[in-house]
Amino acid sequence: MKILLTGANGFIGRHLLRRLQTEDIEILALVRPQSDNSYLEGLGIELIPYSGELKDLEPLIQHRPSGIVHLASLFKSNHQPDDVDPLIDSNIRLGAHLLEASAQAGVQWFLSAGTHWQNFQGEPYNPVNLYAATKQAFDDLARYYAESGLLRYATLKLGDTYGPEDTRRKIYTLWTEIAESGAALDMSPGHQFIDIVHVDDVTLAFRTLIQKLSENDPELEPFDSFYLTSGEEITLKELAARFEAENKVKLNINWGGRPYRPREVMKPGHHGKQLHLPEESRSK
Amino acid sequence: MKILLTGANGFIGRHLLRRLQTEDIEILALVRPQSDNSYLEGLGIELIPYSGELKDLEPLIQHRPSGIVHLASLFKSNHQPDDVDPLIDSNIRLGAHLLEASAQAGVQWFLSAGTHWQNFQGEPYNPVNLYAATKQAFDDLARYYAESGLLRYATLKLGDTYGPEDTRRKIYTLWTEIAESGAALDMSPGHQFIDIVHVDDVTLAFRTLIQKLSENDPELEPFDSFYLTSGEEITLKELAARFEAENKVKLNINWGGRPYRPREVMKPGHHGKQLHLPEESRSK
Repeated sequence: MKILLTGANGFIGRHLLRRLQTEDIEILALVRPQSDNSYLEGLGIELIPYSGELKDLEPLIQHRPSGIVHLASLFKSNHQPDDVDPLIDSNIRLGAHLLEASAQAGVQWFLSAGTHWQNFQGEPYNPVNLYAATKQAFDDLARYYAESGLLRYATLKLGDTYGPEDTRRKIYTLWTEIAESGAALDMSPGHQFIDIVHVDDVTLAFRTLIQKLSENDPELEPFDSFYLTSGEEITLKELAARFEAENKVKLNINWGGRPYRPREVMKPGHHGKQLHLPEESRSK
Repeated sequence: MKILLTGANGFIGRHLLRRLQTEDIEILALVRPQSDNSYLEGLGIELIPYSGELKDLEPLIQHRPSGIVHLASLFKSNHQPDDVDPLIDSNIRLGAHLLEASAQAGVQWFLSAGTHWQNFQGEPYNPVNLYAATKQAFDDLARYYAESGLLRYATLKLGDTYGPEDTRRKIYTLWTEIAESGAALDMSPGHQFIDIVHVDDVTLAFRTLIQKLSENDPELEPFDSFYLTSGEEITLKELAARFEAENKVKLNINWGGRPYRPREVMKPGHHGKQLHLPEESRSK
């Protein structure tokens, strides 16, 4: 099997790449030429540079991957006006180019990463922020290619994730920093429920969907949508207490020191099909 | 009332503009500077040039229109690879810029033109072509602004339309040409049902929704979706016979001379709320 992977330099991308490399799967990585791609070069991954043009994807016609796993994304929790164009280019246009190139190259399936935030309050569609709206907009374009029979499409909607080598400015990173420095951290009142999944489960989920897509599982719709959950929801405050206990540290958090965000998700909402992982292989 | 209108040079735009000008409504027109805007200049309409950048919309902060009517659109029945970027720029990015500028300028409402083709076979969403998918993608960006309380949004989904001064390469234009020239025209077998609305009803429909949006009609959702129908469906073949009778001409059509299009809409599908027009003001 040959797969084109986008976002291979990212947190989930690196974990998924390593998992796929342990199997007999050939990986091509789509990369921005201006990025530091030394990690991927060190792994001997073949790189396809993408500078924002559809024609950059012409190599797909020669390589003919059987599928695409599209993880590359621009995340903005609360966007500013200057973020609008980058959000469109990264989260809509790049994906549209990949879909069009896939149709030309005969790529059979396409797997994309979405977000729980497309389903505020569990609605079929209600975006928490513009980032989530651009994810839905991309799904809308993909729907055309899937319904036209040009490829099979699935999206996996993710919530919070964690794990080793996480370079994103996420909550565990912040807590690790203040645990070491002792600095105070202003946070919201902390009563929002969190559903956080270990990266090993995320990669297992992607691997599960790659299998379903590549073998043309009859249970899959031409356009299908899944969400991943840890099966547990705890408040942010409880999560902090657990972090303290597991790491034997004390966090200096000023709860309520800043307000909830606009449209803060107080309870994770889901829509679509839940992706069930094999129980024995699941991380805690 | 002050309204910013896009697509004012187009078929529906010109008709709507003339209707709004008969009332006490001030119109600003967003135009491409490279377009021939002499028609609008002749009417004394104030023009705001848009060259593809969000900052081109900064004049909205001074003008502060109460609402935007967004008709500008790029239509491609069956897109080619080179159409992907123009479809994204015209049907997604421009609209996203308008939404973002509206949020900054305190514009209260936004009315957009959609297509029946977003609802193939009457499904909640199933795009006939990539054009329809880009329309849905824009709606889904607008949903964020509407759900966040930044503006009230409605879309009016249109099917086929006709009327005087139609410069588009639509069916009546083609038939008028061959009625005069006597030339033969290859068409599909012609059994698809057509729901075609006179442009005066289209402008009445937009005027009705402008009223609802501007007075903050409590029946409107923050994001709302309407479709317009003639209330009658006839086959393309029957439509041709009616055209011949009404215009006392003979059309030399070779029915079946070309196949149906991929995903040809054999029966118009709708989703959302039907927009009802006042019966007495309705065109035939």
